[in-house]
Amino acid sequence: MPVALDAMGGDHAPDEIVAGAVHAVREHGVRVVLVGAPRPLMEALSVHDALTEVPIIRAEEALAMDEGALASLRRPRSSIAVACHLVRRGEASAVVSAGSTAGIVATGKLRLRSQPGVLRPAITVALPTRPTPTVLLDAGANAEVKPEMLVQFAHLGAAYAETALEIDEPRIGLLTIGSEPEKGNKLVKRAHELLSAAPGLNFAGNIEGHDLLTRAVDVIVTDGFTGNVALKTMEGSVRYAFAELRDTISESRTARLGGMLQRKRIRGLNQRLDPEVHGGAVLLGLNGTVVIAHGSSQAKGVSAACVLAAGLARQGVVTRIGERLAAAPRSHRLW
Amino acid sequence: MPVALDAMGGDHAPDEIVAGAVHAVREHGVRVVLVGAPRPLMEALSVHDALTEVPIIRAEEALAMDEGALASLRRPRSSIAVACHLVRRGEASAVVSAGSTAGIVATGKLRLRSQPGVLRPAITVALPTRPTPTVLLDAGANAEVKPEMLVQFAHLGAAYAETALEIDEPRIGLLTIGSEPEKGNKLVKRAHELLSAAPGLNFAGNIEGHDLLTRAVDVIVTDGFTGNVALKTMEGSVRYAFAELRDTISESRTARLGGMLQRKRIRGLNQRLDPEVHGGAVLLGLNGTVVIAHGSSQAKGVSAACVLAAGLARQGVVTRIGERLAAAPRSHRLW
Repeated sequence: MPVALDAMGGDHAPDEIVAGAVHAVREHGVRVVLVGAPRPLMEALSVHDALTEVPIIRAEEALAMDEGALASLRRPRSSIAVACHLVRRGEASAVVSAGSTAGIVATGKLRLRSQPGVLRPAITVALPTRPTPTVLLDAGANAEVKPEMLVQFAHLGAAYAETALEIDEPRIGLLTIGSEPEKGNKLVKRAHELLSAAPGLNFAGNIEGHDLLTRAVDVIVTDGFTGNVALKTMEGSVRYAFAELRDTISESRTARLGGMLQRKRIRGLNQRLDPEVHGGAVLLGLNGTVVIAHGSSQAKGVSAACVLAAGLARQGVVTRIGERLAAAPRSHRLW
Repeated sequence: MPVALDAMGGDHAPDEIVAGAVHAVREHGVRVVLVGAPRPLMEALSVHDALTEVPIIRAEEALAMDEGALASLRRPRSSIAVACHLVRRGEASAVVSAGSTAGIVATGKLRLRSQPGVLRPAITVALPTRPTPTVLLDAGANAEVKPEMLVQFAHLGAAYAETALEIDEPRIGLLTIGSEPEKGNKLVKRAHELLSAAPGLNFAGNIEGHDLLTRAVDVIVTDGFTGNVALKTMEGSVRYAFAELRDTISESRTARLGGMLQRKRIRGLNQRLDPEVHGGAVLLGLNGTVVIAHGSSQAKGVSAACVLAAGLARQGVVTRIGERLAAAPRSHRLW
């Protein structure tokens, strides 16, 4: 089954989205359908001489980048809504969109519905650690959560680590401001108790901001407010460190020679640390795989998102979440 | 007046603390008194041949690094408590300690008391931006806060920016997960309203995690939970970026030559980004200046903390906070 790609969402839609679809099809062998207004999509496809390679599904409406949850109710025929319907009807394996995050989350909840036992889907990102990424969730879908939801997030993240990253019994860490169980705010103190008692979770205890990139755990659980601040702080700090380095190198004449030698390697490193290369974030907990690409995605980012989405669908992360939540004791299911 | 230095707090107390005191006195002309157990302090001073240069004030007890708020009540004669008393009695200009943060905060509140109108003192850090640092608070004293407290934090941070950094009308940013006023959790939405209406504050609106190091604003206001996670994430991410860079350099033989050339400059850059070089965090809102040095501080970090404390006392940050809060409308004073 193909990936349903929202061709109208993103700062560079539809041209870069279409270019990304063509790249995913040709370079990675991923099947893709474009969802959006047929005329501009056909024009963009013809630029790549790819009219016969990527099918188009019509959707006449689209959510603007500054539109959020309410617009998704008002526009049931938006490109992102139609993409979700394709998954729901079993005609696509996954959804990819570079549209507004709030719009994708709201439309996904409305059109795909949450999996049984999931009250709140969570945005899940893979932090660029080695040798395997570290899973962080929630990265921004839920600004306010209850302690029990953090236990659910642990199951969602564990399912992702098991399927997409092939990690057995992933270690779960709770993001807070001290390593002792009594450190933190009320939310994390209660979540610590629940996680410690939860069967089926390999809870490794509290972790701090330092530990985001140290592979201290496989899955980092937090509320969407803290997670979003931490993710963006991480991205901004890495960018800052590299920018400082570039300035330092060009300041010194002796060092400039060294800078020339290293430029190529630094660029590679910079890219590996760039979350866009990973294809984006995943909205877990819905009856279908939804990948949220960066709003600023160019063709390469869109292609990476399609590869990520096809992989997650093949690896069965949605099924694995279902198994985990069905096995969780009723008190943690919340329904 | 001298700085009162808690000689018994910190992972490397008392030897590195004493060495830091000697460094501050000899290299920076800062007056320092050591507070702690006289015998080991005299021994440590004699190693530096500095028995006549740094006076000792006796305190027979000390808080251990793993002790928190309760221990500060049980030990009224601890080195940190005695250091606070010296400031309270007008015999020292400021307190410096590398002891446990929880112990310093609790002892500071108990012995120095909050300034009129301050319900919650806040840990304040200077992020390593250029050309001037960016002030972030609260970095961990208050895991749960009310919206009104964030307005107070804005005044504390503005006073710090005005006095220590000589910034006129410092721009205040509220850390949240989207730039629009309606983004965030309940706490920041309400705080946004209050900050927008508060006289005497140059409120620049919401900022995100990306903006911690971009000088988007002069002062970043947040609760102690989010602030601590963001600060540690920033530190960990910068360290990670540099470690990745070192690995990348040593992986490549061609690049190794370049690495040799740059090593010295990278080390300098690394240090500038290292918060320990800045002397540590400041606990603002008490009737006296309190500098919290990193627990792992060596002599150089302790010396930097003494320089920072003496400067803050001279620049009058405590007085400026008093002026700001006295001018704030009663509804924001909370008492």
